[in-house]
Amino acid sequence: MNQSELIHELLAILGPERVLYKEYELIAYECDGYVAERGRPRAVVFPETTEEVAQIVRLLHGAKIPFLPRGAGTGLSGGATAMNREVVISLVRMNHLLHVDFENMRAVVQPGYINLQLTKQIAQKNFYYAPDPSSQSACTIGGNLAENAGGSHCLKYGVTTNHIVAAKVVLPTGDVVELGAAFGEAVGYDLLGLLIGSEGTLGIATEITVRILKKPQAVKTILAMFDRVADASDTVTAIIGAGIIPAAMEMMDQLAMQAVDKSNYHVGYPSDIEAVLLIEVDGLTAGVIAQSEQIVAICEQHHVRTVQVAASDAERALWWSSRKMAFGAMGRISPDYLVQDGVIPRTKLTEVLQRIHEISEASGLRIANVFHAGDGNLHPLICYDASVPGEMERAMRAGSEILKVCVDVGGSITGEHGVGIEKIEEMKYLFSEAELCAQIAIRTVFNPEDLCNSGKLIPKPGRCAEIKKIPATIERHEKIFSSFGEQTQALLVKGER
Amino acid sequence: MNQSELIHELLAILGPERVLYKEYELIAYECDGYVAERGRPRAVVFPETTEEVAQIVRLLHGAKIPFLPRGAGTGLSGGATAMNREVVISLVRMNHLLHVDFENMRAVVQPGYINLQLTKQIAQKNFYYAPDPSSQSACTIGGNLAENAGGSHCLKYGVTTNHIVAAKVVLPTGDVVELGAAFGEAVGYDLLGLLIGSEGTLGIATEITVRILKKPQAVKTILAMFDRVADASDTVTAIIGAGIIPAAMEMMDQLAMQAVDKSNYHVGYPSDIEAVLLIEVDGLTAGVIAQSEQIVAICEQHHVRTVQVAASDAERALWWSSRKMAFGAMGRISPDYLVQDGVIPRTKLTEVLQRIHEISEASGLRIANVFHAGDGNLHPLICYDASVPGEMERAMRAGSEILKVCVDVGGSITGEHGVGIEKIEEMKYLFSEAELCAQIAIRTVFNPEDLCNSGKLIPKPGRCAEIKKIPATIERHEKIFSSFGEQTQALLVKGER
Repeated sequence: MNQSELIHELLAILGPERVLYKEYELIAYECDGYVAERGRPRAVVFPETTEEVAQIVRLLHGAKIPFLPRGAGTGLSGGATAMNREVVISLVRMNHLLHVDFENMRAVVQPGYINLQLTKQIAQKNFYYAPDPSSQSACTIGGNLAENAGGSHCLKYGVTTNHIVAAKVVLPTGDVVELGAAFGEAVGYDLLGLLIGSEGTLGIATEITVRILKKPQAVKTILAMFDRVADASDTVTAIIGAGIIPAAMEMMDQLAMQAVDKSNYHVGYPSDIEAVLLIEVDGLTAGVIAQSEQIVAICEQHHVRTVQVAASDAERALWWSSRKMAFGAMGRISPDYLVQDGVIPRTKLTEVLQRIHEISEASGLRIANVFHAGDGNLHPLICYDASVPGEMERAMRAGSEILKVCVDVGGSITGEHGVGIEKIEEMKYLFSEAELCAQIAIRTVFNPEDLCNSGKLIPKPGRCAEIKKIPATIERHEKIFSSFGEQTQALLVKGER
Repeated sequence: MNQSELIHELLAILGPERVLYKEYELIAYECDGYVAERGRPRAVVFPETTEEVAQIVRLLHGAKIPFLPRGAGTGLSGGATAMNREVVISLVRMNHLLHVDFENMRAVVQPGYINLQLTKQIAQKNFYYAPDPSSQSACTIGGNLAENAGGSHCLKYGVTTNHIVAAKVVLPTGDVVELGAAFGEAVGYDLLGLLIGSEGTLGIATEITVRILKKPQAVKTILAMFDRVADASDTVTAIIGAGIIPAAMEMMDQLAMQAVDKSNYHVGYPSDIEAVLLIEVDGLTAGVIAQSEQIVAICEQHHVRTVQVAASDAERALWWSSRKMAFGAMGRISPDYLVQDGVIPRTKLTEVLQRIHEISEASGLRIANVFHAGDGNLHPLICYDASVPGEMERAMRAGSEILKVCVDVGGSITGEHGVGIEKIEEMKYLFSEAELCAQIAIRTVFNPEDLCNSGKLIPKPGRCAEIKKIPATIERHEKIFSSFGEQTQALLVKGER
């Protein structure tokens, strides 16, 4: 099927208002929040129903044309970038709240429904949706599902996979299945769990059932400034060690504070403090007061310079804005920056921050640190200037080195931003070849032609073939591949010949 | 490989002390906690290391001899019963605590380590392991992984899948992989999530990394007795509606109370009350006191007859024993009983209990109800007398009818006991043929020969072939099957011809 035939077919399904295909219309869809790589899609389509998504996918599957789903395009790892001239299936018009069951604490949304919109919509009944990525005012719940999004309050409440309980899904072949269970645990293999965090490679969720929670009776927010990063890190460990799981426990370092203080969210951080902790506890009033007092005492035991509890909702909102807008605020101190995302054991915070400092010195690039300290989820922000030749590459190299440090101390290469195209290379730090091939075998079950978001999340099959070039390991690997069935072997052969 | 060759090979790997193969030695391994079906294994082996498990599995895989893993044998759905003359791989000798990292709140155990033992071992540092199935003093963490075990306190803390973060796994081919991440979320597809709850069909975990939690500062336990079941049900909904998530919220009905009051855990339940609620809140002292007062007030608003807060640890322990031993206590009022396990939306409690009452009347069998009310996880206990011909079959039929009721109100066929062999038939209430075939395709990736615990959890491939007998649906189904790749089609053909 050539391009004009394809456009003709797409127009027949969706009409002229919901198909973009002129080159100038497609420019806006060349990347998502990860700007280091770009790819122009073949077309962008805007279905409004499950049936329309299924019709489009069946058409593309039949014609062997690659495609990928896209939410708000706020992803930071390139998961929605069309590297293979895909047809982009934008879900922004599937933006309705379909059903709310307050008594059983469930809501059903379409994938293009915006995260924060859900909380706003159910707030009058005193409910909210817990996962709160920094982009929550723009990102969609479908995108959150694809990326298994986290957020500041996931320390206590868990990431997206803990909050999505069921989904209607269009598979990469166009067939429609329902996964998960609105009530109780999944029965059989947890296929919904596979879908969540699969970065659009296993299917397109078109109806999503989420848990909604009752708002806590009381919230206390604490801001603690430390002369030394090590003291702030020790405070994090001590608070958790005291048996407190705060709703959120965020840290920013000196450079990050400088940036936000230059933005519209001026908190007034003293320029000589090394770290600030933003800690929040929620629950019943009585418990929350006791907990916040205990946290203040722990800060004081760890040489805090100043510690205060938010005196008003406005103060709390300002503190949170300064944290949530920290990424954007980097623009105030650097022409460009790269957001990294790694995970480490909480107790390694001080050591890893020191290593990041060394990487910063060696690369000659400033690195700010903003992170979910309670989860050990780091977000180093690597400052660079794209107009200086080679500087972006140096920034990317520094980012990759930081991820290697995370893995070396027992952590992982992404906490919540996903692998996408950005971290395909880093996957090999984390997984053995056998493990990567198992991942490919799983993808092949749902996405047999690899037409749906190809090249994302899991390195391409070629990698499986590559390792066979080492003769000594051939026999062992053959055995391992055979354990994942004939399909993987077929891939292997294809990749090799 | 004939039986004597097999035994010779097994003895060569493990020595004479760790292989059982004489018929009289095998009788004890004919079933697990689900006694309605029995099957004598070919042999029972007791490996002590990952390498020994891998060696045994490689031997059996190579010889195409079926096998299955077994923990303490406390499972209630027949997951460890050798229906195909399997070699049973008992993990009870892999019963060590390998490592504890208190600061990062992780422990690494072997699969045969007993659930309660972990809590006991780390209690001196004020830590515990949260999932607490009623069988926790006997069941193993490996078995908990296989069944995604729940427990009374999973209302607040979540089931096993929320507490296991990584595992070393021997695949059904004998290859060894590591799944999950000790820190942070799984990267790539969540293969560990697939393994958890896979009932021994995808592999054998030989090292398991779990979260451990700090013990809460305070616990309050409340016992509330109601004249009417409907009031108890409404109380459950009202407590959750007030934004309280108790650590546990358990209900027992009249017949269950009669049974426990005849046992060694005599609480003294008045014979004319219809329902008792056992509610526990935990956390900081201040919060817990406020919460327990609020719960007492809610009980009073819902016509509770008596409500009391445990005055001592001894009283709390007695109340909990009466709940945790309720299954066993059924022996005091009935020669035999069948434990069922279903899930419903919490708001359907009253309606479903009424339907269970009707099923009891129609079948002429008494049915007691003991359940995790907060989760909507029912455990109807169906009394019967195996010596009366046909009565066990009637009990099983009544159990199946109850599960159908659960599905009809939007719930599920198992909350925590698993599918095993017991609920293979009920899977079709819950899943479409396409969804079952997707499950088979996933199994085939890891367990290509279906040698590892065959016939459990997912109905056999024959079912996929069967549905093709309906001519009108052939084309549609063929399309659906093709979406799961060639392997499933191969299974389909095999099942058919």
